Parts: sequence; C-alpha cells; structure tokens
Amino acid sequence: MSMQVGLVGLGKMGGNMAARLRDKGHEVVGFARHPEKRDVASLPELVERLTAPRVVWLMLPSGDPTANTIRELTSLLDTGDLIIDGGNTHYVDDRQRAAELREHGLAYMDAGVSGGVWGRENGYGIMVGGAEEDVARARPLCDALVPDNGGGYVHAGGVGAGHFVKMVHNGIEYGMMQAFAEGYELMAASDIVDDVPGTFASWREGTVVRSWLLDLLVRALDDDPELTELRGYAEDSGEGRWTVGAAVDHAVPAPVITAALYARFASRQPDSPAMKVIAALRNQFGGHAVAKADSGQAEEG
Amino acid sequence: MSMQVGLVGLGKMGGNMAARLRDKGHEVVGFARHPEKRDVASLPELVERLTAPRVVWLMLPSGDPTANTIRELTSLLDTGDLIIDGGNTHYVDDRQRAAELREHGLAYMDAGVSGGVWGRENGYGIMVGGAEEDVARARPLCDALVPDNGGGYVHAGGVGAGHFVKMVHNGIEYGMMQAFAEGYELMAASDIVDDVPGTFASWREGTVVRSWLLDLLVRALDDDPELTELRGYAEDSGEGRWTVGAAVDHAVPAPVITAALYARFASRQPDSPAMKVIAALRNQFGGHAVAKADSGQAEEG
Amino acid sequence: MSMQVGLVGLGKMGGNMAARLRDKGHEVVGFARHPEKRDVASLPELVERLTAPRVVWLMLPSGDPTANTIRELTSLLDTGDLIIDGGNTHYVDDRQRAAELREHGLAYMDAGVSGGVWGRENGYGIMVGGAEEDVARARPLCDALVPDNGGGYVHAGGVGAGHFVKMVHNGIEYGMMQAFAEGYELMAASDIVDDVPGTFASWREGTVVRSWLLDLLVRALDDDPELTELRGYAEDSGEGRWTVGAAVDHAVPAPVITAALYARFASRQPDSPAMKVIAALRNQFGGHAVAKADSGQAEEG
Amino acid sequence: MSMQVGLVGLGKMGGNMAARLRDKGHEVVGFARHPEKRDVASLPELVERLTAPRVVWLMLPSGDPTANTIRELTSLLDTGDLIIDGGNTHYVDDRQRAAELREHGLAYMDAGVSGGVWGRENGYGIMVGGAEEDVARARPLCDALVPDNGGGYVHAGGVGAGHFVKMVHNGIEYGMMQAFAEGYELMAASDIVDDVPGTFASWREGTVVRSWLLDLLVRALDDDPELTELRGYAEDSGEGRWTVGAAVDHAVPAPVITAALYARFASRQPDSPAMKVIAALRNQFGGHAVAKADSGQAEEG
Repeated sequence: MSMQVGLVGLGKMGGNMAARLRDKGHEVVGFARHPEKRDVASLPELVERLTAPRVVWLMLPSGDPTANTIRELTSLLDTGDLIIDGGNTHYVDDRQRAAELREHGLAYMDAGVSGGVWGRENGYGIMVGGAEEDVARARPLCDALVPDNGGGYVHAGGVGAGHFVKMVHNGIEYGMMQAFAEGYELMAASDIVDDVPGTFASWREGTVVRSWLLDLLVRALDDDPELTELRGYAEDSGEGRWTVGAAVDHAVPAPVITAALYARFASRQPDSPAMKVIAALRNQFGGHAVAKADSGQAEEG
Repeated sequence: MSMQVGLVGLGKMGGNMAARLRDKGHEVVGFARHPEKRDVASLPELVERLTAPRVVWLMLPSGDPTANTIRELTSLLDTGDLIIDGGNTHYVDDRQRAAELREHGLAYMDAGVSGGVWGRENGYGIMVGGAEEDVARARPLCDALVPDNGGGYVHAGGVGAGHFVKMVHNGIEYGMMQAFAEGYELMAASDIVDDVPGTFASWREGTVVRSWLLDLLVRALDDDPELTELRGYAEDSGEGRWTVGAAVDHAVPAPVITAALYARFASRQPDSPAMKVIAALRNQFGGHAVAKADSGQAEEG
Repeated sequence: MSMQVGLVGLGKMGGNMAARLRDKGHEVVGFARHPEKRDVASLPELVERLTAPRVVWLMLPSGDPTANTIRELTSLLDTGDLIIDGGNTHYVDDRQRAAELREHGLAYMDAGVSGGVWGRENGYGIMVGGAEEDVARARPLCDALVPDNGGGYVHAGGVGAGHFVKMVHNGIEYGMMQAFAEGYELMAASDIVDDVPGTFASWREGTVVRSWLLDLLVRALDDDPELTELRGYAEDSGEGRWTVGAAVDHAVPAPVITAALYARFASRQPDSPAMKVIAALRNQFGGHAVAKADSGQAEEG
Repeated sequence: MSMQVGLVGLGKMGGNMAARLRDKGHEVVGFARHPEKRDVASLPELVERLTAPRVVWLMLPSGDPTANTIRELTSLLDTGDLIIDGGNTHYVDDRQRAAELREHGLAYMDAGVSGGVWGRENGYGIMVGGAEEDVARARPLCDALVPDNGGGYVHAGGVGAGHFVKMVHNGIEYGMMQAFAEGYELMAASDIVDDVPGTFASWREGTVVRSWLLDLLVRALDDDPELTELRGYAEDSGEGRWTVGAAVDHAVPAPVITAALYARFASRQPDSPAMKVIAALRNQFGGHAVAKADSGQAEEG
C-alpha cells in the first residue's frame, strides 16, 4: 500500500530513507535546512503539501533539533496527524512528548532505525513504540524500509519502546565492537600471529563470531591492513551513555557495555587526569624520581 | 585431492568432523575410547592402519588427554609423520611440544576449530599454525572442513598461531555473548519492552548487531521465550582465561573480554565471599542492624 | 560560638549529631516522626521554638522525605532563615531547590556528612556547598561536628558542591571496599594463605593499604573470621549510582567505581537473567546437553 | 635480641631497611653492585663475613637479579644457612626455589615488604611465608623492621604465602589508588567543585575514605594542586599482573583490581590499537568521513 509521508531531515540517514521509500512507491515530501535536497522550503510548506491525516517522520539529531521541530509542528499540524520520531531520542523523553502532543490532538510514535549508510540498499532495522493504531498507520512505511525479506521489524511496546530497544541495540553494538577491538589489539601485540587481517577474514565463515560487524572490520582491514591511517579516537553517541544510565537505574550489571563506553571516553583524552593521580601517588611512595630507576619495589608497595 | 587421516577423538566435534571429511571423499580412520564409534581399537592399531607418511588429527580435550595421546603416538609414529592438534590447547604449550616432536622426527601443527555442532552441515572455521610444508600437507583436510564456499580458513603463523587466534576468537565470543546477555537483561528488567524475543528476532535483518550469535539467541528464545528453564550459570573453557592471561602478559587492556569471563565466574558462586566483605563493612559503618531500617545514610558513608 | 539549630531527623545519623552538637555547647531543637527522641512534636512547633533568623538542619533520607519536609518548611519559615540539607540528596536537585527557596526569601546550603555511627565520638567529615554568607553562618555547627583537631571540613563550592563531593566520596568508598573484598576472596580461595584475618590485621601498620576501612574489616573479622554469619548481599545507596551517572555525564571513565556498583547489583540477584542468556547460547553451540560431558570444544567455539 | 644479617640489595628499599635494622641494634653486612654503599665487595666476601648459620636477606628486583643471586649463593652457603627473599618475587616461583635449596641443605623463606621510602621512619609491613623454624629465626629482624608499636607483621603460611599476600596487598593498592584517581578526575571535570585539593584534605578526618593513600594524595596536591607537572602515565610492577593471573586461576572475579591494571596499560599507549578498530568500524557505518559532520545517527547504529 502506497502512502504519503513528510520526511524532515535529509542527512545521511534521512536522505537514504527517502530514496528507499520512493523506490518502494511511497510519496515522500522532504524538508531539510539545506536547500539542495529538499522538496519544500519550510515546515509550513511541508504541512501544506501533505494531505490530512498527515504522517510526518523526523530523522534529526536528538535533543534540540528534534524538540524544536516538534514544537513548531505542533502548532502547524491538525488533529489526527501523526508524528514519528525516527531519530535517536532518549526514551525517557518520549512519554512526556506523547502526552503533550495528545493534548493537541496529535498522535506520536517512536522508531529506532538501524543500518547506517548500508540501509538504503540492504534495508533498515526498524523498532517502533506506540499505540497499536498509530503503529498500524505507519506500517507501510516500515515495510518499505526494512529488508526485502520482510524481517527487521518489531513493534516493541508502547511509546518509548522503539527508542529503548534501539538504545539497547546500540549498547550491545558498543560491546561487540569493543570485543573485536580487544581481540585485534591482542593479536597485533603478540609476535605469534603473522596474518591478522587474514585471520579476521577467515572468521567470516564457519565461526561463532561471524557477524556484520566482522564483515565491516574485514572491509576496513582490506583498505588499511594495519589501520595506520586512523587514530584510536572514538566519539560516543548518546545511546551508549543512556544504556549505561538505564542499566544503573534498573540495577542491571552491564560491565561489558560500560567498559566499551569508558574505552571511548578514554580514547578522547590527550592526557588522563586520573592517571596523573596514579603517577602522583607512585611518586609519593618512592619519595622522589630517583627511586624509579633504582628498584621496582621502591615505587610500589 | 583425497587423502587419508587418522582422527583421534570422536566426540561431538571429532565425530562430526569425521563425517564431513568422509562426505568430501577423504578416508578417515577413527579412534576413540568408546567402542561403538571407532574404526580401530587402539592407537597402535590406528598407526598400523595408516599409510606412511601418516597424518593424525587429534580432537581431544586439552591438557592431559591430549598430552597423553601425543606421548603415546610419539613412540608409535615414524619419521615424517604429522600430528595435528585440533583441540583447544593453550598456545604456550605448542612450541615446546613441536620442539619435542621434532627431536623424534615428527612434524606438528596446531589447528583451531570453530563451529560447534553446526559445523558438520555449515563447515568449520579452521585456523592453523605451523611450518609451510606441514600446513600444505594438511590443506586438503582443511578444505573439506571449511564451508563449501571456501572461506573460513587461515594459516595464521608458525606453530601455536592457530591455537592463539582460536583462543582470541573465543575471547571475542565471550565479549559478544555478554553484550547480548546484558542487553537482554536490561530489556527484561524494564517495564517498557513488551516483546523481548520479537525484538531480538527483528534484529536479525538490517541492524548492526546481526550475527550468528544473535541467530542462536533467537533460536533459544523461540524454544523458551523467558529462559525459564535455564539457570544463570555458565562454565568457562580455558580459552577465556588464557585470553585474559595473554592480554595481561602483553599489557593489552581487555576490559570487555575480562568482564565477560568474570561474569561467568560469578555465575557459579552460590554466595560471593567478596560481597560478604562488603556486607561486613556496611555493618561496621552502621554499628548494628537497626541502622538499616532507619536511614540510608547510617549505612554508607 | 554557641548557636541554636533545629535538627529534623533523629535517626542513627541525626540523633548522634544532635548529641555531639549539644556536647559542644550548641542548643539543638530536634524533631522526628518518632515521639520518644524529639523535643518538639511538629514542624510548626519547631519553627516556633527557634529564634529568627533560624537555621534548620535536615538529616533525612533523600528523595520524598527531604522534599516534603522542605516544602512544609517553606511555608513556615521567614525571610532570612537558612535550611541546610545534610542528607544524601542528589546534587542535581540542589540548585533547583535553592532557586525555589530563594524566591521565598529563604537561604539554602547543602552539607555532605560522612562518618557513620562512629561520628559521634570521632567527629564527622563535613563537606558544604553554598554561598559564602550562608556557609559562614553554619560554620559553628560544622566546627562542632568535625573531629576535635579541626580537620574534616571543606567548603567545596556553590550550592550542590557539598553533596557532589560527598557523592564522589561514597563512590571512592565503593571502589576501596571492593578492592579489599576482592583481595579477601582471592586469599580465601587460595590454598596458600593460612591466616587471612591475621594478614589483614598486620596490614594496619606500615603498609600502603592502611586505612579506616581496613580497620573496620579487621574488626569484622575479629568477630567472625570467615564471615560465616553473613550473606554476600549488598544494597547500594543512591550515591554510587549517581557517581556513575555523573561520570557518564562528564565523559569520565570510572571503571573501578562502576565495577564496585555492579558487584552490588549482582549480589542481590537470586539468578542472573544475563547469565541465562550465556547458558542458552552455550546450549545452542552444543546442540544438546550431551555435548557437555563429551568435550569442552563442543560447548564453546 | 640482636642478630647478624647479610643484606643483598641496598637500593631505596634495601638501603633504608639496613639503616632501620642497624638503628634497632642488628649487625648488617650489606652488599650491592654499587661500591659506595656496600660493606663487602662480593657475595663470597659477604658469606665469609657472616657467622654460620647465616641469614641472608635479599632486596633485589624480582626475576633474573634475584634468581642469579640465589644461584650464586647456593654454591657459597653452608648447610643450615637461611635465605630470605624480601623482593617482589612471583609466589609461584617460591615453592620450586625452596625445594631446590632444600636439596642443598639451605633453608628458604619469603617476605613481602611494604612501606616504600617511608618505611625507614614509620616501619615496614612484613608478611612472611615459610616453615615455623625458619620464620622464628628471622623474627628478630622482622621485629626491627615493623613499626615501633609491634604491628605490621604476619606469618601468612608456608613458603610463598608471604609473597602471595604481598601480591594481593599490591592488587588492593592498585584498586584503592584507582578509586581515588577516578574521584579526582570526576571532581576536576565537573564545574561544581571549586576546591578539589581542599576536599581531599578535608577527607583526612572523620570520613570513611581516610587512609594513608589519601594522605599521600593530599601531600602531592599540596605541591602541585592541579598535577600540572605530571603526565598521566603509570608503570605497573609485576604484582598487579600476578594478582589478576591468580584471580583468573582461582576463578575469583576481580573486576576492580583488573580495571586498575588495565587503566595503567592504557595510560602508556600513545595510541590505542583497539580504539583504531572502533574508529574503523564507525567509519564503515558512515560510509565516509562526510557522514560525521552530517548526523550522529549516520555514524552509529
């Protein structure tokens, strides 16, 4: 079933999603700040172009960009219109937002979208949260976005559940990435493994660790077998932090996901204040620097 | 190229490998302690049945079973015969073992084998370590064992490298499993996710975490959606421990793999001595138990 | 300088603090829910008994008890009165609270109080946050509460800083406790140490780990050398969670404090959902339970 | 009771111990590689100067320096002489060493020594392992080394137990140091704490975290309040690694001690190979670098 959707945010994610939706026969009216890609020049124009009851799907950075857009849309949309937040919004904000929109007669659902730039071709993983009727209304869009075999979709629960499970998905992703990263470093540090890239490549078949992340790692090592062109520096999106926050809130031990997050924090520090404290304490044991060259014992113990 | 191999150990792994090797046209002479499956009744008979230069592949538990078998084979085999250890031997033992066998004119190579009971059908991941000529000799066997598309094979380096990378593979596996496990617990602990099994199932397509481990988890949740039939108890094979040991030896931070190992240790403790210390200290702060009911502050800090 | 203070909350902490304040010559008017200890029967009576400008010090559980009391006091107190929150309030709530009270003409400062039941005799560590003038006004009370040598006091910063550093103090405490706990378990698990309690006792002198927590541990082991009377079960106060939350918010890697918190979470789980997932995955590798008895390899790998 | 001892190794530890032993009335014959401090110029001369049955106490770096000296002493000493290894030897080496020396009629005991450069004045913590009679023989030396109040001494068990508990002591020390370090970094990273050094200083009295390590940290911050003169770089002695190894061997979860060790490993890496893998994978999600500037979503998930 073909339908019409307003898509706000035409970046790497939104732009590709618009293309996939169109490929599957949907009508997409796109709006973005950058003039070159968009179909309409403003949110009012977007709303005008859509036939009520409207569906508007947001693919914006979480936080202010999403919040400000929803605020503006609230005053433009009509009773019965549906806003879908496909960005990485913190799940704790969803329920509040849904309640506010309901007061204006607007429906709201959240959608976690996974797949990166590969999604246009492969399809996206789509995890939605919301009321049954809203989710049903958006279903044709989701069907177009997921992989062609029809997998990759879940209605995880009420409002917020889509963002919650997408958040957990990303937390798991952090842990998996870090597991591969530690394995890489250990093989590279040993003098026993002659072919680290070949080892990863071989693991793509028959092994327990075969996975899409492994495929991506093999791809990266094909281009740069010793990763000499990269710095060991990694940003974190909010979702790793939120996963740890949710784990702490629910008294769930999450040592692996947390360690993966902390490794990213540490990767961005040119110097570690904590480790300065360790150095300072070690100096204090030894009395002064000369101790260092003299005996391991003098330094620790 | 079809060849002959003696296979010692016909358990879950060895038995399936024998079957796959035979399916691919190799001649397998199998020996195991249990009479029903074996082709020969003793190691001397095995050696007698094989044509020199012989190839004997061991699929035995690491430690004594493997060591004892190699010791007995050393006295039975002839110069130029090749022993392949396909078990999960600690890589640090391989070089010593190879040197000893070389003194007896015997060749040695190590093979890490991944794939579990699924390997018979899907093929195994095979990671070998050893000299070029020995590895070349065993290649037809490896070609039969790996998946039909020819992937899943690496000659990772000299003697020990096969077991080393298999060890790291398992360390990564620990980390990945724990990442999924933490994500499961967090979703189950929240009151926001109505369909945890469905969420995992949806992740098999389009997402970043899609992987064989995810496939297995979905399979397990199909049978038992809330895992009510299982206890949260997990053994660890030696390889997780060895990975942490190797990380420490090489000064490689491996927080994720280590956390996964420690979670298994903890899962097997009916009560934690360490946490008794925490409880004891908390009692000391508060003076006596009555403090607990009175105020959070009295207990801590 | 002797002064008058209203003290709300006469539990293990508040009650002892009242006693210490009186010992040092201050006039304490105490209120608590329980009739036996209190000097006044209600907050209105408390306010009536105090001479303006009043100082009211709260020692209540954080969250609702503190919030509700402050709300009631807001309507009872007069311009220029000062509320001191000595409980373990989350620092993020302090600024908001101070701003609200300021609108009613009331001053607010926060005080982290450390020392447990030992504080009455030894004195307390007092960490305050607030405006210079408010902090100065409360100083005589703080001087009475801290140890007799005058140490143990810091004005850490503006409103919220007292609770923030008390929170960090408790986070550090978690890490230190867990370090001792792990050391205990390792010594107890080895067959090499014949005298674990004696070892801890010896460490009280001359070593690097000598500390008050060690003193408490030695005291606990004096009573129960193998801690047989305790379960390895530990609650966590909010402050460990808040420390981890603050670390995540500030992108500060805090692996030790977090590991200590997670160990407490795990100690309270009769069975671990996460480890059920590990068990389920291990079952999947092996195909079925028979695999377990057969070979380590079949289970992992 | 005054006695005679040969002391080999007159570095920061050995030199101060010699001085303390002499202060307490013992006769110390010292040998070291560096001519200026020593009483004798060679091990043979040392042995000649001592009256049989001799006691020789080693304070040398663990590994080859200790092993080589013991080997040389084995050929020089006579039946009934006692070697005490006061260095940080790995406990697993002690039993083998004791057995070898016993074959030569020599007694052996191990002594863990804690206290750093402060030990000369304050006394040392001494943890010994060995047979009752050997330990008794060395007791007067230990009595002189421990603090004047007589605490700080334990006979922890048979040969190896002294080094084992010293190892665990250092593991605990790692964890405690890291706890303070994380607390420091968090306070420094927040914009809420105006007086970090003052906060630590205040904690020396009345609080739960008061400890010698805190005293040392306050001393370090007195000299350099923001630790600007230090890099966040920390070596690790073998003992942290051995503690983690022992924990893994005994299936004891030791997340805090391990995290502290890994933080040191990471502190010494100019760039992290593991985090290059994370960066590489993030690049792969996003397709290319342009994605980074466009949307957080494109990069992760």
